[in-house]
Amino acid sequence: MANPLTPDVLLDPVVLTRALVDIESVSRDEKAIADCVEDVLSKAGHLSVRRLGNTVMARTRLGREQRVILAGHLDTVPVNGNLPSTVVDDLIYGCGTSDMKSGVALALHLAVTLPDPRYDVTYLFYEAEEIESEFNGLNLVAQEHPKWLRADLAVLLEPTFGAVEAGCQGTVHALVRTTGRRAHTARSWRGTNAIHAVGEVLRRLDDYRARTVTIDGCTYREGLSAVRIAGGVAGNVVPDACEVEVNLRFAPDRSEKDAAEHLRKVFDGFDLEITDSAPGAMPGLDAAPAAEFLTTIGVEPAAKLGWTDVARFAALGIPALNYGPGDPSLAHAPDEHVEIGKIRDGAATLYRWLAP
Amino acid sequence: MANPLTPDVLLDPVVLTRALVDIESVSRDEKAIADCVEDVLSKAGHLSVRRLGNTVMARTRLGREQRVILAGHLDTVPVNGNLPSTVVDDLIYGCGTSDMKSGVALALHLAVTLPDPRYDVTYLFYEAEEIESEFNGLNLVAQEHPKWLRADLAVLLEPTFGAVEAGCQGTVHALVRTTGRRAHTARSWRGTNAIHAVGEVLRRLDDYRARTVTIDGCTYREGLSAVRIAGGVAGNVVPDACEVEVNLRFAPDRSEKDAAEHLRKVFDGFDLEITDSAPGAMPGLDAAPAAEFLTTIGVEPAAKLGWTDVARFAALGIPALNYGPGDPSLAHAPDEHVEIGKIRDGAATLYRWLAP
Repeated sequence: MANPLTPDVLLDPVVLTRALVDIESVSRDEKAIADCVEDVLSKAGHLSVRRLGNTVMARTRLGREQRVILAGHLDTVPVNGNLPSTVVDDLIYGCGTSDMKSGVALALHLAVTLPDPRYDVTYLFYEAEEIESEFNGLNLVAQEHPKWLRADLAVLLEPTFGAVEAGCQGTVHALVRTTGRRAHTARSWRGTNAIHAVGEVLRRLDDYRARTVTIDGCTYREGLSAVRIAGGVAGNVVPDACEVEVNLRFAPDRSEKDAAEHLRKVFDGFDLEITDSAPGAMPGLDAAPAAEFLTTIGVEPAAKLGWTDVARFAALGIPALNYGPGDPSLAHAPDEHVEIGKIRDGAATLYRWLAP
Repeated sequence: MANPLTPDVLLDPVVLTRALVDIESVSRDEKAIADCVEDVLSKAGHLSVRRLGNTVMARTRLGREQRVILAGHLDTVPVNGNLPSTVVDDLIYGCGTSDMKSGVALALHLAVTLPDPRYDVTYLFYEAEEIESEFNGLNLVAQEHPKWLRADLAVLLEPTFGAVEAGCQGTVHALVRTTGRRAHTARSWRGTNAIHAVGEVLRRLDDYRARTVTIDGCTYREGLSAVRIAGGVAGNVVPDACEVEVNLRFAPDRSEKDAAEHLRKVFDGFDLEITDSAPGAMPGLDAAPAAEFLTTIGVEPAAKLGWTDVARFAALGIPALNYGPGDPSLAHAPDEHVEIGKIRDGAATLYRWLAP
């Protein structure tokens, strides 16, 4: 197959977006797109290129004082009758248009058209972001080639609709359990009802006042939610066990350990088991390239409320933010699309930031 | 097979208990025992005998002013390595010894040995009490031959360990549901958590003060219990639905309709669905045969707290009470047994009550 990412296509990030969308690349099936991307990067004399699985890394070696990463994942969720791409007015429709081949197009366009950026740049096009962490290309690079990720700032081109979303919240799940003593409901006073005892757990959830924390101008609003509750033995038995699963989303000024400790305090007196957690990521907007990026883009950063791969960079000590042309609310939708104007704006903004 | 219920055996309620226990009669397999019982009743010239399925009814027709029923079920729960019966000291061990072939033995012994009781007596030996109501012999008789059940008092020889337990509580189950609005837990304030909303339901359960009602000297203690709770969508979703199943056990001065109305009041403001209910039974101890029975036995009656077939009599307007030699706490247990002394006491008491 001739590489559809021709020199002409690479010159126009809008055309390039369509070309990338039309190379189907559902998670675990990214070889074709990774081959095309590796091919065009290798032909650019100013880049040194490496590959791990279907993850492709290319970087300038200009000896700049600072280095930034532009990163995007090559995979998409399963196609949903929405390929090949179509254009309607100023919208490109198709699987991956928003999440996130329009972002990938910005990075790939800059990689081959900007040989002398003001910072050294590492371009990272990685596989398997939409599925389990064990397959995630960024995760694999972090484990096997952490040096590839050395940088002063990472920009993840995930859909933000042109906003800057910095850092991310952490998350922790826990089971809160109550116990009691079984009895026949006809003689309920002989038992102790574990479901009734959960009332106090729910009261604490209801009384809980979540923090709002502002870091580097980004406001993180925490939240503590019951996500599951289960208890009961039979219709005529006072139940002796009940459990509530809770999920705390916490601002990145707390560590995972802090967050777990906080939950233990909230549910003091109850049996509590932490079942999983993931750290948040500080916005890290005081790094020089980040400050300059914000000046260039001219909008106030906001906190990223979900968990994204920026946390993987944060875990390596690299400030990271999300910035991309796609609309996050359209990600994974059958009518996924991207505004052509947002692609052009994004390309212009990144160019202004990185041009010498 | 020769009928093991020989005239000699019928003369001694203890020997008769063992003989009945040794005719295996798990629910839906009562033909053999019903045949033996029908056979001996038919041979007693003072009784007129009828049969429906494996339920056998025999009655005196002495023209007494009042009629009482002595009733017992012929079936047992599945045998659990506890047949044939064994005797250890003053205990008979085996499946059905307590629940309720010792009670059946009292009735059958009286049926054949007391030709001229002071009340007319209807003896009812019925099938399938231990399983679904649709098979219950008493239920089938009530539907097909309600005349067989005409009486001024029914004594159900279920295990009470020699106590008199009168009437029974009613029971009603209901689902109390809360709803909310889904949201990602990272943006939990955009949703409404249906599990948190259940807190108020549990608070009302916790605050609930159950009534204690005394009727004819029997004290019924009500109870309202959550018996099951379930809710949740996924670990990262604010749930939009939760439900609690509650069980109210109510004193027989409330009707099923009253009980349902009461639940609606307790959970006012919540979506509530009644899923099933069964009426209680008034103790009805002011009927003359009941008063005389209590005088004879010389102990204070207590309320039956569970639901038993006495409620089927009560539904027909017949006062009913439980009185039997078995220990209710041994019913359905692998080491089920009955005290020989309790059988002799029971036989003597019933004889004193019924003898002319």
